[in-house]
Amino acid sequence: MSPSQPAKPPKRARVRDLGLRIGRFRRGRHNAITDVARVRVGHTTVVHEGHGSGPARTGVTAIVPHDDIFFRRVIGSGFVLNGSGEVSGLTQVQEWGLVETPILLTNTLAVGIVSDATVREMVLQNPGIGSEHDVIIPVVGECDDSWLNDIAGRHVRAEHVVDAIRNAKGGRVAEGNVGGGTGMITCDFKGGIGTSSRKLPLQYGGFTLGVLVMSNFGHMRDLRMDGFPVGELLERDFGGYSRRQSSYGSIIAVLATNAPLLPHQLGRLSKRVALGIGRVGSYAANGSGEIIIAFSTTNTVKREPRRMIADVRFLLDTSIDPLYAAAVECTEEAILNALCMAEPMAGVDGHHVPALPLREVKQILRGYGRITERR
Amino acid sequence: MSPSQPAKPPKRARVRDLGLRIGRFRRGRHNAITDVARVRVGHTTVVHEGHGSGPARTGVTAIVPHDDIFFRRVIGSGFVLNGSGEVSGLTQVQEWGLVETPILLTNTLAVGIVSDATVREMVLQNPGIGSEHDVIIPVVGECDDSWLNDIAGRHVRAEHVVDAIRNAKGGRVAEGNVGGGTGMITCDFKGGIGTSSRKLPLQYGGFTLGVLVMSNFGHMRDLRMDGFPVGELLERDFGGYSRRQSSYGSIIAVLATNAPLLPHQLGRLSKRVALGIGRVGSYAANGSGEIIIAFSTTNTVKREPRRMIADVRFLLDTSIDPLYAAAVECTEEAILNALCMAEPMAGVDGHHVPALPLREVKQILRGYGRITERR
Amino acid sequence: MSPSQPAKPPKRARVRDLGLRIGRFRRGRHNAITDVARVRVGHTTVVHEGHGSGPARTGVTAIVPHDDIFFRRVIGSGFVLNGSGEVSGLTQVQEWGLVETPILLTNTLAVGIVSDATVREMVLQNPGIGSEHDVIIPVVGECDDSWLNDIAGRHVRAEHVVDAIRNAKGGRVAEGNVGGGTGMITCDFKGGIGTSSRKLPLQYGGFTLGVLVMSNFGHMRDLRMDGFPVGELLERDFGGYSRRQSSYGSIIAVLATNAPLLPHQLGRLSKRVALGIGRVGSYAANGSGEIIIAFSTTNTVKREPRRMIADVRFLLDTSIDPLYAAAVECTEEAILNALCMAEPMAGVDGHHVPALPLREVKQILRGYGRITERR
Amino acid sequence: MSPSQPAKPPKRARVRDLGLRIGRFRRGRHNAITDVARVRVGHTTVVHEGHGSGPARTGVTAIVPHDDIFFRRVIGSGFVLNGSGEVSGLTQVQEWGLVETPILLTNTLAVGIVSDATVREMVLQNPGIGSEHDVIIPVVGECDDSWLNDIAGRHVRAEHVVDAIRNAKGGRVAEGNVGGGTGMITCDFKGGIGTSSRKLPLQYGGFTLGVLVMSNFGHMRDLRMDGFPVGELLERDFGGYSRRQSSYGSIIAVLATNAPLLPHQLGRLSKRVALGIGRVGSYAANGSGEIIIAFSTTNTVKREPRRMIADVRFLLDTSIDPLYAAAVECTEEAILNALCMAEPMAGVDGHHVPALPLREVKQILRGYGRITERR
Repeated sequence: MSPSQPAKPPKRARVRDLGLRIGRFRRGRHNAITDVARVRVGHTTVVHEGHGSGPARTGVTAIVPHDDIFFRRVIGSGFVLNGSGEVSGLTQVQEWGLVETPILLTNTLAVGIVSDATVREMVLQNPGIGSEHDVIIPVVGECDDSWLNDIAGRHVRAEHVVDAIRNAKGGRVAEGNVGGGTGMITCDFKGGIGTSSRKLPLQYGGFTLGVLVMSNFGHMRDLRMDGFPVGELLERDFGGYSRRQSSYGSIIAVLATNAPLLPHQLGRLSKRVALGIGRVGSYAANGSGEIIIAFSTTNTVKREPRRMIADVRFLLDTSIDPLYAAAVECTEEAILNALCMAEPMAGVDGHHVPALPLREVKQILRGYGRITERR
Repeated sequence: MSPSQPAKPPKRARVRDLGLRIGRFRRGRHNAITDVARVRVGHTTVVHEGHGSGPARTGVTAIVPHDDIFFRRVIGSGFVLNGSGEVSGLTQVQEWGLVETPILLTNTLAVGIVSDATVREMVLQNPGIGSEHDVIIPVVGECDDSWLNDIAGRHVRAEHVVDAIRNAKGGRVAEGNVGGGTGMITCDFKGGIGTSSRKLPLQYGGFTLGVLVMSNFGHMRDLRMDGFPVGELLERDFGGYSRRQSSYGSIIAVLATNAPLLPHQLGRLSKRVALGIGRVGSYAANGSGEIIIAFSTTNTVKREPRRMIADVRFLLDTSIDPLYAAAVECTEEAILNALCMAEPMAGVDGHHVPALPLREVKQILRGYGRITERR
Repeated sequence: MSPSQPAKPPKRARVRDLGLRIGRFRRGRHNAITDVARVRVGHTTVVHEGHGSGPARTGVTAIVPHDDIFFRRVIGSGFVLNGSGEVSGLTQVQEWGLVETPILLTNTLAVGIVSDATVREMVLQNPGIGSEHDVIIPVVGECDDSWLNDIAGRHVRAEHVVDAIRNAKGGRVAEGNVGGGTGMITCDFKGGIGTSSRKLPLQYGGFTLGVLVMSNFGHMRDLRMDGFPVGELLERDFGGYSRRQSSYGSIIAVLATNAPLLPHQLGRLSKRVALGIGRVGSYAANGSGEIIIAFSTTNTVKREPRRMIADVRFLLDTSIDPLYAAAVECTEEAILNALCMAEPMAGVDGHHVPALPLREVKQILRGYGRITERR
Repeated sequence: MSPSQPAKPPKRARVRDLGLRIGRFRRGRHNAITDVARVRVGHTTVVHEGHGSGPARTGVTAIVPHDDIFFRRVIGSGFVLNGSGEVSGLTQVQEWGLVETPILLTNTLAVGIVSDATVREMVLQNPGIGSEHDVIIPVVGECDDSWLNDIAGRHVRAEHVVDAIRNAKGGRVAEGNVGGGTGMITCDFKGGIGTSSRKLPLQYGGFTLGVLVMSNFGHMRDLRMDGFPVGELLERDFGGYSRRQSSYGSIIAVLATNAPLLPHQLGRLSKRVALGIGRVGSYAANGSGEIIIAFSTTNTVKREPRRMIADVRFLLDTSIDPLYAAAVECTEEAILNALCMAEPMAGVDGHHVPALPLREVKQILRGYGRITERR
């Protein structure tokens, strides 16, 4: 970096590009939730300086489990680690063991408008909803981005939701300050959207599992990377800045897998995502909504079946442990990807949130012998 | 009724005005949830023939637990009998054991707009929300009124929500085709909003308990009134009409009490509301969202306390059984009040739903010796 | 009954033999849980006047879901309506969605010895338990029979448990004062073991569902039979006797079905059993342990599978409502069968508990036109 | 260590004596659950070479929350991270929010006998149980020690239970191969009983919180100490031995605090214990029963109150985060104490389990700069 370019931030990188390998399983092709076949992700990022109100630092992320999710519901479940937050629609997901809408992530005060816009979009796509077909309850998770975003300005609008759903695609997933994660903060550094995936060896079934998080929790001093007390060490040099008070962060995690799991197995798998969140440094603070949704794309349940009975295949519990271990490490990496990919951001009330300083992080990890210089 | 007024429907009446006494405890002054001091109820009824779309038969009901609910949260909890529905905000109520917003009831596709409008209204009333204060997640319950209401027409608008909250008041509560209950159906008759209360004898603590339901579940043949198989008998004469298919009904029940209960006790009390729903004839059908929210007005928890410790009084479990029994009978009566008070209604697609025929009901109950002619 | 036999109690009868038909579905051949193929029931009744201690009025009932239950686990789940009681092993049933031991019912203080004896018996039958195979946690439910039984005398012994398991058989099931139900009381009358079954019409899948209860809850005044306030009316003539104080009753219900259900579906079905308990008059008193275990015999899961994946068929939720309705009515009839079949009993401390007076019950139901004299 | 005593194992030490400080809060006086006033712990260790059967490597640990626990119940709750295990009595603890018996820890097949013996002992101490007083359901947690212990030999006997309860005392708590932890294994090293405590600063209320674990879970490669990948490094040198196959381990954790918490708050606190278990390396394997019980000694609830209403003080959620953080670090340290204090052990079938090699562990941690030589 030359002296003539002082403001240019250092390039961001995913955690594996730093040379850090979390866990023991192989990642999928894009190291993203979209490595699970059929799963698509779309972001609408809403950043502007306000139109008569405060600055917008927010957005919407859509995870679409199946192209025809209304008619081909996927088996799903979830777990509430700490319920100081909202995933609307979760009650029905847990009752039926089915996900039948896209999963949307946004800011707390936008849950209503996002749910509303999702219903409109789905009615448009499936005109019989509410008449020949049942009504639907979209799955919408939220975190509070009000440290950077003028949340009361209600900047998320219906078209943002529609865009996120329609533009959802497979392949590489943008991370950091995008979509619902735009204004989110993690461990006092800029957080947001992160994702990661694992592909189990064939001897364990060869299944793919991916996690996507909207990460907005924690304190710097508690941040651990692959177990190492990185936050504790960064605190000395980076802890002086004026940061978000109180613990009103949150994290919403979405897990997708093509392993054939039943609803109760996905509920159990969701608890392992919670353990992964804990590994990064969360103690699930009182004000932090830490909620997990999980689904399996393998068994779909038709909306209007002609038969009474369906056949499903499911993974026997005696072979489920590798998935559990993979969920923990994949969650950890997804959160760290959010941290490593997010750029610094300034927002409402003159607040500024720095990015995780990758140079220093690498130095720390190198000191622990955990990463070696890549050539 | 003279022969010259053939179309005038018979006057509706509450279930006790029929002479039927449900349970053994005394009712409160208004036999309504508002008998619990401080609790207020407001309805906005949205009925018109559509403005370019189908007919509106819907609305919003607001239950306000405390005048200053944002700053003086009430202790609360809930129970999901069958989760094929949504009470957004329930997760946080169950996590914290607190209700900190009004509780809103509306149709399924209006949850988003109602949640949104409630946030706006609360930000207006408490400008620091999302900046100096935490954000909020409104409690919004729904049932599907699409048999009568053009639900996809999205007739509920923000101002309806604001009106319901602002006009909420104590005292007598309108029942039947009002507010969120406007387009609802119960056991194939017109249902909607119903309420009832109980005042325990002093030896049991003298507490008041009230239930308000938005009732939209069930089949005629299963309807029981005070245990008597009224629906089975009505089925013969009234079962021939073209009724709502499938069991996509629901019921949301809100219980308020001034008994000093802790969150886990309110969760337990909510299960007894479920038993009351069962007594009227529900088997909690697969597609029926049967969800209960309960709160105690006695112990409020301040938003920004100056102390770490709060003092609360709570009813010992050894004295809780009368409340349990009262919750069952009060729920039963609230549902029957919805049925008895609702007028017949015509709506979308030419659908027509008859009112519970009070004359025949009285005749049946008189036959069982359960009611006597009042003078 | 001749004048020379004045003490002979009137013959007991099952509720349908009184002419009362609960619900609308057809019963199975034996109107018992054993109508579900493979399910066997065994009772050991322990009644004697004590050997140096107080009188024994207790026992053990074993429900065996499958002949080879250790190696062919059945899919299962449960629900806690009120957890003032214990079903040891329930945690694991709910975690794995599997039942892998017989289900035992006994008195509260015998849970330890019954669990212990069941383990011994299963180790004997499957010598590898705890070495080549995993250890097991038996499912043992309890109610408190201490009003009639000298519960602290610990009269249940290991051989009673072994006998109940080994003698378990299909076909007709003894009811009333047998097995675990020996000393139990329901609504102030003698209760105990009761069972009932339903066979759904072919159009609903033709499935069989059976419920067996160990019933020990409630107050006379709350007793309803098919909805009719029988207890309220009996209270006048039979309420004067010196009865069990406080509400320390309980009910454990076991539901079996051959409908192919997944674990979460069996959990949901268990909630409908709770509604059935409520129909008979329970408000789930604070001290009453009201717990349900449910299993499906159709899909078994092998202990040591050679494959990672299993195939199962499951009933789609869109066709599950008839099972829900059947669970409610079957539970109601099972409890009433316990009441109708139990003989009066004298026990510890001179306590005496009368039987439900069938003659008066018939008279009441005949008055309501609910039963007609059978010829 | 002189050359003439080559077989003498190196002295064991608690984790802080290694120089490792877990977390940021101060430990209590004994760094044990007994630092919470009134809490007592007793162990009965059962080690012998069998009397006609296999070797005994098992025992019983009793945690007594209050001297008069039957009459002065403490407020309690719990959480099931993975329910492949049993804590009998947990259902009632969660229903009532009360613990009213000692909490016992033992091997899986001894739950019955331990529950039974606890009832006997409590009836002896409180003769009215089951007559003038209600019956009781002891809280008994288990792990499977069958890799070292001849579990089917049923070596735990009633007198062991009685001894553990009667000899329970405050102050220092024996760790490692004692009591219920005698035959337990953690991350392929010898595990067992471990404990730790935290005393919050006065600004956070000055509360004490202690955790005691019976630790029996995990794989060597997953073991983390204070986040550092100690197990991964030890695997190279110590991973070659013939170890327990499959993941049938478990961990039962008991948390005590004098912070005035309500039942739902203790349930939430229990989830943070789960996060602490995850930090050490658990992904909560399918076969691993990972269950937490928590109680607060500050508010006791009398068995037979003369009043309907009780007064309690409770910690406001706005001040609860330090307790959450303390629970995580205290759990981590308790598990590591079990590992650091347990001696190597030989048992059934020639199995041998090494102790965590403290010298190598110190070397690893010193390499990470985490510990410095103490003088």
